Amino acid sequence: MSTASGFGKALVIITGASRGFGRALALSVAARVSPGSVLVLAARSEEQLLELKSALTRGETGLTVRCVPVDLGCEAGVEKLIAETRDIQPDIQHLLLFHNAASLGDVSRYCRDFTNMEELNSYLSLNVSSALCLTAGVLRTYPKRSGLTRVIVNISSLCALRPFPTWVQYCSGKAARDMMFRVLAEEEPELRVLNYAPGPLDTDMQREARSSCADSELRNTFSQMHANGQLLTCDQSIQKLMSVLLEDKYSSGEHLDYYDL
Amino acid sequence: MSTASGFGKALVIITGASRGFGRALALSVAARVSPGSVLVLAARSEEQLLELKSALTRGETGLTVRCVPVDLGCEAGVEKLIAETRDIQPDIQHLLLFHNAASLGDVSRYCRDFTNMEELNSYLSLNVSSALCLTAGVLRTYPKRSGLTRVIVNISSLCALRPFPTWVQYCSGKAARDMMFRVLAEEEPELRVLNYAPGPLDTDMQREARSSCADSELRNTFSQMHANGQLLTCDQSIQKLMSVLLEDKYSSGEHLDYYDL
Repeated sequence: MSTASGFGKALVIITGASRGFGRALALSVAARVSPGSVLVLAARSEEQLLELKSALTRGETGLTVRCVPVDLGCEAGVEKLIAETRDIQPDIQHLLLFHNAASLGDVSRYCRDFTNMEELNSYLSLNVSSALCLTAGVLRTYPKRSGLTRVIVNISSLCALRPFPTWVQYCSGKAARDMMFRVLAEEEPELRVLNYAPGPLDTDMQREARSSCADSELRNTFSQMHANGQLLTCDQSIQKLMSVLLEDKYSSGEHLDYYDL
Repeated sequence: MSTASGFGKALVIITGASRGFGRALALSVAARVSPGSVLVLAARSEEQLLELKSALTRGETGLTVRCVPVDLGCEAGVEKLIAETRDIQPDIQHLLLFHNAASLGDVSRYCRDFTNMEELNSYLSLNVSSALCLTAGVLRTYPKRSGLTRVIVNISSLCALRPFPTWVQYCSGKAARDMMFRVLAEEEPELRVLNYAPGPLDTDMQREARSSCADSELRNTFSQMHANGQLLTCDQSIQKLMSVLLEDKYSSGEHLDYYDL
């Protein structure tokens, strides 16, 4: 349904688009869609979204970019984003929904320190529930139709598969999300669903992990990876993701890691 | 740390103890602890807990049974349960915490129908957050000490590993819980942590799944299993769980399924 070079006329929705992986993803996808395509970009910071929009619409791109400054941790934010995905030209060939928004959680503590249920609930609301509600809302807005390829990409992590000390929120949230999208893939065989683990990226989140992780062994590992230049750039990882999506040969629902490709 | 025949003098905490697997578990564990042991049983129904207590304390058992009627979906419920685990005689040899409370979620719908974030958040609060908060509270009340074996058992499911259509809440919740306890096992090497999948049990939850599952193939599978007597009794599954715990040879954090044993 996609050509080797691009996604054709597309509606692209990216959460957590204002910086890091999400921002680089927006720039990369924008270069692979046809004029008439629409990018809907969500993040908390309106300022950063507008800056990205101006980078995306420089020159005669033929792209429409909608910035949606929202907090996806609450229902109103998810609903606002879903509303912004409506009224798109009906002849799009690709719907691409990238679930990239995520928070690291507090890695300065251990499981035995998580006595506050509200804190955990907030984490799961942003990192798990919102992804399912957004998916549901977008799929209902764009039901199955001939000529439309619907693609849902969950930005996952090695943490969805492997436990890391002090990362209980992140690991549990990513495990739940992977499973959620595996269930979705089972339910909707005509959807294309991918859980993509982008590898260890040189982003703000990685810096946060390096500085605040309570587990000294893990902290040292991150610091060494950083010092030895072993962290990936977002663009390195996105290049592989784009190839996977354009080649379109992955098994729907599967977990693919940068290092597997 | 345990003898082949029992857990010695123990503090046993079981959530979802009023019926089904939890109730059978309480009866089974009670038969394997020494006089002076304390069972703390949590569930929503006080009436069913009191009935269970009377079954547990029939005769000269030497057991103390504390019934804690609470809703573990909210912080107050978890805190009340943690409070009830305090002031236990200090010479216990075993601390056994069984996370059995769980809800099936709504299996009459598909992922695309989950547009209500509050519904998902409530589900995750009961099935994920509460299990971590309860664990944290109990571990802080009973820190590492010589002569005390601390065991955390998560009643898991095949659904933690495999996606089933219409079971997005249950599968995602169980995947998150498994991962949570794997992280705990990494963090606390002296703890004994087990994710136990009890197999398909002939319980109220299974009946609910059989009657309301929107996926006809899955519904038929359950109905056939029921009709052909392929569902397990709780006691069959608990017998294997007891053997695993008493033999104490499992790798902490691992996922063990009834059918693997």
